[in-house]
Amino acid sequence: MRTVTFLPSYRKIVVERGTTVLDAAQRAGLNMNVVCGGQGKCGKCVVYIQSGKTEFDKAKYGRFFSEEELKKGACLACETIVQGDLQVMVPESTLIQEQKILIKGLENEILFRPSTKKYYVELQPPTLSDPSPDLDRLLWGIQKSGGPDAEKMYAPLEKLRDIPSILRHSDWKVTATIGLVPGGYRVLDLQENDTSSRVYGVAVDLGSTTVVVYLWDLVTGIVVGVASNYNKQISCGEDILARVNYARKNGLTRLQALAVESINSAITSACNTAGIDRDDIYEVVVAGNTVMTHMLLGIDPAYMIAEPYVPVVRRALSIASSRINIACNPNGGVFAFPAVSDFIGGDIIADILACGMADRDEISLLVDIGTNFEVVLGNREWMFSCAGAAGPALEGGEVLYGMRANPGAIEKITIDPATLNPHYVTINNVKPRGICGSGL
Amino acid sequence: MRTVTFLPSYRKIVVERGTTVLDAAQRAGLNMNVVCGGQGKCGKCVVYIQSGKTEFDKAKYGRFFSEEELKKGACLACETIVQGDLQVMVPESTLIQEQKILIKGLENEILFRPSTKKYYVELQPPTLSDPSPDLDRLLWGIQKSGGPDAEKMYAPLEKLRDIPSILRHSDWKVTATIGLVPGGYRVLDLQENDTSSRVYGVAVDLGSTTVVVYLWDLVTGIVVGVASNYNKQISCGEDILARVNYARKNGLTRLQALAVESINSAITSACNTAGIDRDDIYEVVVAGNTVMTHMLLGIDPAYMIAEPYVPVVRRALSIASSRINIACNPNGGVFAFPAVSDFIGGDIIADILACGMADRDEISLLVDIGTNFEVVLGNREWMFSCAGAAGPALEGGEVLYGMRANPGAIEKITIDPATLNPHYVTINNVKPRGICGSGL
Repeated sequence: MRTVTFLPSYRKIVVERGTTVLDAAQRAGLNMNVVCGGQGKCGKCVVYIQSGKTEFDKAKYGRFFSEEELKKGACLACETIVQGDLQVMVPESTLIQEQKILIKGLENEILFRPSTKKYYVELQPPTLSDPSPDLDRLLWGIQKSGGPDAEKMYAPLEKLRDIPSILRHSDWKVTATIGLVPGGYRVLDLQENDTSSRVYGVAVDLGSTTVVVYLWDLVTGIVVGVASNYNKQISCGEDILARVNYARKNGLTRLQALAVESINSAITSACNTAGIDRDDIYEVVVAGNTVMTHMLLGIDPAYMIAEPYVPVVRRALSIASSRINIACNPNGGVFAFPAVSDFIGGDIIADILACGMADRDEISLLVDIGTNFEVVLGNREWMFSCAGAAGPALEGGEVLYGMRANPGAIEKITIDPATLNPHYVTINNVKPRGICGSGL
Repeated sequence: MRTVTFLPSYRKIVVERGTTVLDAAQRAGLNMNVVCGGQGKCGKCVVYIQSGKTEFDKAKYGRFFSEEELKKGACLACETIVQGDLQVMVPESTLIQEQKILIKGLENEILFRPSTKKYYVELQPPTLSDPSPDLDRLLWGIQKSGGPDAEKMYAPLEKLRDIPSILRHSDWKVTATIGLVPGGYRVLDLQENDTSSRVYGVAVDLGSTTVVVYLWDLVTGIVVGVASNYNKQISCGEDILARVNYARKNGLTRLQALAVESINSAITSACNTAGIDRDDIYEVVVAGNTVMTHMLLGIDPAYMIAEPYVPVVRRALSIASSRINIACNPNGGVFAFPAVSDFIGGDIIADILACGMADRDEISLLVDIGTNFEVVLGNREWMFSCAGAAGPALEGGEVLYGMRANPGAIEKITIDPATLNPHYVTINNVKPRGICGSGL
């Protein structure tokens, strides 16, 4: 085992000899900028070996560096093998910086009809003349309080095991959380006393670059918190193609965990800001493109990046949150939007629903500009859609002065109508270094 | 820690000082006869301490023994505390002996319509002109082979993860197992190539004394194996009341495990006889009384033995077999019959269905004589039922020469119509020792 110390943070990690420096850095929690997914192609994961023995093929990868840089120990983290204990300097430019993410939008009026509701019920204890089973007593009580038909509700085994003690311990005053799931209404939770004001849902926009979560109060229908995060999968590859290739090299488990981590840290941050317990979140709805959705669920995306471009599934999916470790109530559910195809994913379906174009007679044109770029044309009767890569244009690739939304990126330009003087705003109001997506 | 050695088998177990000898014996795997559930009341768990230090209150429990027996070290295992290393003789009469269980019955003609079926499909690989998702391709193939509507079938997450590699590795020739579950048809399993002839179901008669399993071939509709076992819960108490009391003293987990073990060893034995792999069993249907069903599922039965006699649940339940560790395919399902009340359980509902009385205009009288005794009177329009304890009469209690169906029990008596000479048959054809349920 070898100890690798990363500077300037002095983070240490113990790894086996033969590990790559990139792998060690990721395990140490550094958010390395790896555009190509660690294939030695992009030259972004630059580090400087300050002491210790490594293996690095200068003949093959020297082209990324000047003579001077090589003398200072420069190498590509993904192609450098740990041989001895190391001290490695990681320049700031190699780390993914905190980004500014667009989280405000136009708000369309929507019909508020949550699929998860809480019901507070005060039940009559059983008597010899009414010895109904605990479950029936509970479900009838919920139905009488305005809940679904008792016959359409069911309790999973772990809740059946809890019901008798919770009912008796609370003196028959309980709050049940009921969720609409395929096949009926499920008793998601049963709590003592009245907790009916505490039930939340989360809407997740799972992009390949950024993750945004909206925390909804499912009683009032109000958004009580918003938080965003870059997608931590970036450390395994900047674009979708690089990540699918990473997945093919036994990396799917890690990509899945990183997607979940990205969502969870945004949920945690939104909850902390709003002062809400994550255990009161019972519903998480995720809209993402087809590859992102596959990765989040740990389903192999390998067959989507080559002809004939075949996803495993495009249906809407409903999964217990505990199955993929989403940070909400362990009995909560995760709903993933359905896709149309490999290229038109659940994010676009969510766009279509949110903007209301599927309800209108007039023809609308929907444009979703993100790392990918999708266009949908149509109305309530028909729709056409197409998609292409837009990420390079918005995130620094191809555009001469293009860059990500890091400090120094021009994010807004206005022209005074009277004087015609232009005015720009950069992120963090520092000297301009380039232009990001919002600026373009 | 103390070592307790049980004679004559020389089974050893290491236990903490302060453990009861009964507990040590059960952990050593001895099937102790404990009618009262280990409360020092029935005097059945007699053992002889041959060496070592114990604590046993002779003043309180001496009444169960003669002076001579006490001199030989006789005591009740449930009331004897291990203090030092022990040698304990366990007389044969203290162990539950293998019993003869009634497993033959009249066979009613039934409509064969299994809820689990296998479909072998040969799919067309995807092309650019048909890039449908793997799941759709599979489900359409199943539908075309006579399966349910593709829209009504769904695949759980773990199967979605398996589908792409199995389809490609098998060259798109697979066998899918589809089960009818609440809410639709579930893809229970997906196997390479044609395994469609191997799909089995098990019907379990879960009695408080005995467990009988019938192994059905779900392709041909033929019973291919039968096996029986006593219910291993007997070691925690002979009758239902004693077992519920055992459950209340943190014993529910053990009772649940013993019920599962009893079923599993009967399933294993039936499979071995029939030469069938347990992994080919996808469906297990259990009929038991209300307390037994609660215990099998690990649901607290405590409120059923005192006024107002309230079960937790009386609905039919459908549970993944892996949730309660039933020895069948890990993706299989367990179906528990619904109950009417505390006293009229799923076993009686199964009786009613099996005998067909619910389909007839004529009034029938159904009598189920087991450890409990239930009577149902009625026809297709109405039914009355009642229940009482019958076990003591059939299993040795109350009846002067009554005994369980152990060797020496008279199990059959005939009277020659010509000579009027009586003739009896005993179990194992040995000298008569008493009369068992079949004999009565």
